[in-house]
Amino acid sequence: MNDVFKIVFHGENSANFRTGIEGLLHHTHEIVCVSQGLQEPGEQAHFESADVVVGVALNSSMPQPRKMRLLQAPAAGTDGIQRECLPPHSQLANCFGHENAIAEYVMTALLVRHVPLVEADQGLRQGHWKFFAGRPGALRSELGSQTLGILGFGHIAKTLAQRAKAFDMRVVVANRSPLGLEATSVVDQSFKLSDLNAFMASCDVVVVTLPLTENTKGLVGQAALSAMKPSAIIVNVGRGPVIDETALFQTLQRQQIAGAIIDTWYQYPSAETAQCAPSQFNFASLQNVVMTPHMSGWTEGTVRRRQQTIANNINRLSQGLPLQNVITE
Amino acid sequence: MNDVFKIVFHGENSANFRTGIEGLLHHTHEIVCVSQGLQEPGEQAHFESADVVVGVALNSSMPQPRKMRLLQAPAAGTDGIQRECLPPHSQLANCFGHENAIAEYVMTALLVRHVPLVEADQGLRQGHWKFFAGRPGALRSELGSQTLGILGFGHIAKTLAQRAKAFDMRVVVANRSPLGLEATSVVDQSFKLSDLNAFMASCDVVVVTLPLTENTKGLVGQAALSAMKPSAIIVNVGRGPVIDETALFQTLQRQQIAGAIIDTWYQYPSAETAQCAPSQFNFASLQNVVMTPHMSGWTEGTVRRRQQTIANNINRLSQGLPLQNVITE
Repeated sequence: MNDVFKIVFHGENSANFRTGIEGLLHHTHEIVCVSQGLQEPGEQAHFESADVVVGVALNSSMPQPRKMRLLQAPAAGTDGIQRECLPPHSQLANCFGHENAIAEYVMTALLVRHVPLVEADQGLRQGHWKFFAGRPGALRSELGSQTLGILGFGHIAKTLAQRAKAFDMRVVVANRSPLGLEATSVVDQSFKLSDLNAFMASCDVVVVTLPLTENTKGLVGQAALSAMKPSAIIVNVGRGPVIDETALFQTLQRQQIAGAIIDTWYQYPSAETAQCAPSQFNFASLQNVVMTPHMSGWTEGTVRRRQQTIANNINRLSQGLPLQNVITE
Repeated sequence: MNDVFKIVFHGENSANFRTGIEGLLHHTHEIVCVSQGLQEPGEQAHFESADVVVGVALNSSMPQPRKMRLLQAPAAGTDGIQRECLPPHSQLANCFGHENAIAEYVMTALLVRHVPLVEADQGLRQGHWKFFAGRPGALRSELGSQTLGILGFGHIAKTLAQRAKAFDMRVVVANRSPLGLEATSVVDQSFKLSDLNAFMASCDVVVVTLPLTENTKGLVGQAALSAMKPSAIIVNVGRGPVIDETALFQTLQRQQIAGAIIDTWYQYPSAETAQCAPSQFNFASLQNVVMTPHMSGWTEGTVRRRQQTIANNINRLSQGLPLQNVITE
């Protein structure tokens, strides 16, 4: 059985995975790109008649793809997909492949706090040797001497832990389920989620990598933030609301921790509004936060790896084989 | 035999290793700090009567420490020490312990070329989501997809290779002597120095880690630089003159490679001049170079590790044991 499918790439993000997909598919399929809003002529009909949708959104206000057998998210997060809108006999799958990119983002954001490249360059261009080895005040700290705490232990966490360990950092993890034996080479200590505050207190850097679920929403609240060292920083590359919005803003505004690097937020642009503030609170008024627009995983390598996953699943569906990365919850 | 020594810390750099040294020494010694120029009253006499000098300079224009049994450089480089000025029966030793710091510097300087944190932060503070995953033009490259070439394979190179490998970089090395078996876990390919141009051509990033010797001076000349990919960059954390000064400047000025990150230079401040340009050429006029003032190895961790090495050697000398890191060439 080698079915020919109608494959619909839905929305601006999914369109990034369209170019070159033919070269990875075993058979010729009908491939269409449609906009997020499905407002252009014919787009609604394409969406409703799709065998495979590549997209990150499905809800009851949208046209329903009744023939759909695979909704393939080209991303890890599927919180924009209402499960009750999936037609019977369809499967939902996601993609990873962003873990290397996110680990590079996190390590970059951490390292630049220790190595003052920009200030040093500006100085030496004017003949100033402020950071010259041996000069008073030139001494800097090392990231490698710090403890990195990772909340969650999925793809991102494992990839990040491997890089942090190569820098000789102490790596600790807090996770719902116990860590497997393979973690022992990169993790020095693990905590249960019931010991979250002790975990937070032990870290110089806390990196939140958790997806957004009913159990993780607001998991890092005021109590957890208050348990952190005053010298510590928190990084969010999971989903914004895993850290309580009010507690995070107030903790930073009151300078109770040293800072934050936030990539995943509480408010996002919509199809109608290309610009928006990322929170109801004025994070832009704070000097102790690095604010980035949900970019950490977005690299050429991520697109290449995800496109391969998408193609693999379409090939498998076409051949009647079990799909990969299927989400059953 | 537990001799009591007169230990003289010579110069501004050495003074950084003075504080707390008593806690690491097994016996009480006479410890004195003197200035680089030895111009203050009594400094010359201290220097001449030292049993141990901690310093990086000795030449024929300076007072001669005739009793000296150990000249302990608190650094790796000993090119400021004229060997013929060492008194008979004295030993010269150096320190490493800077390799973690230099590896952090290099990885930081490389990673920031891929992750536009500053621009992203400035944008999102004004509601712009330019780098939002999926947006046209938001896609960035990954350091991990590149080939890192290291010239030399000493302490710095091994420490850097370990970190680069954790990022899934391809790691190649060019070295005078063949690499040991232990290198195979972090090095994908090695070149002889006679194949320097082929090595240079294979790299996205070339990192020079070599010390300055008669054999390494100008080793990276116009031919080697011309062999590099136009998209590649060169990093110098070894010694400035290992890269030919004129060839480097002209290569950058003509934009024949993508850029350079230079920490070790051709001209340095002296005791008299706190400021100076780092080259006879106007590198500050170039936009494709990051210029830093010989700072890459200078961290709290480096001082702590080197102070331990210095104390170990003084303890060993006092006990008649063989010294560590002795330089015999």
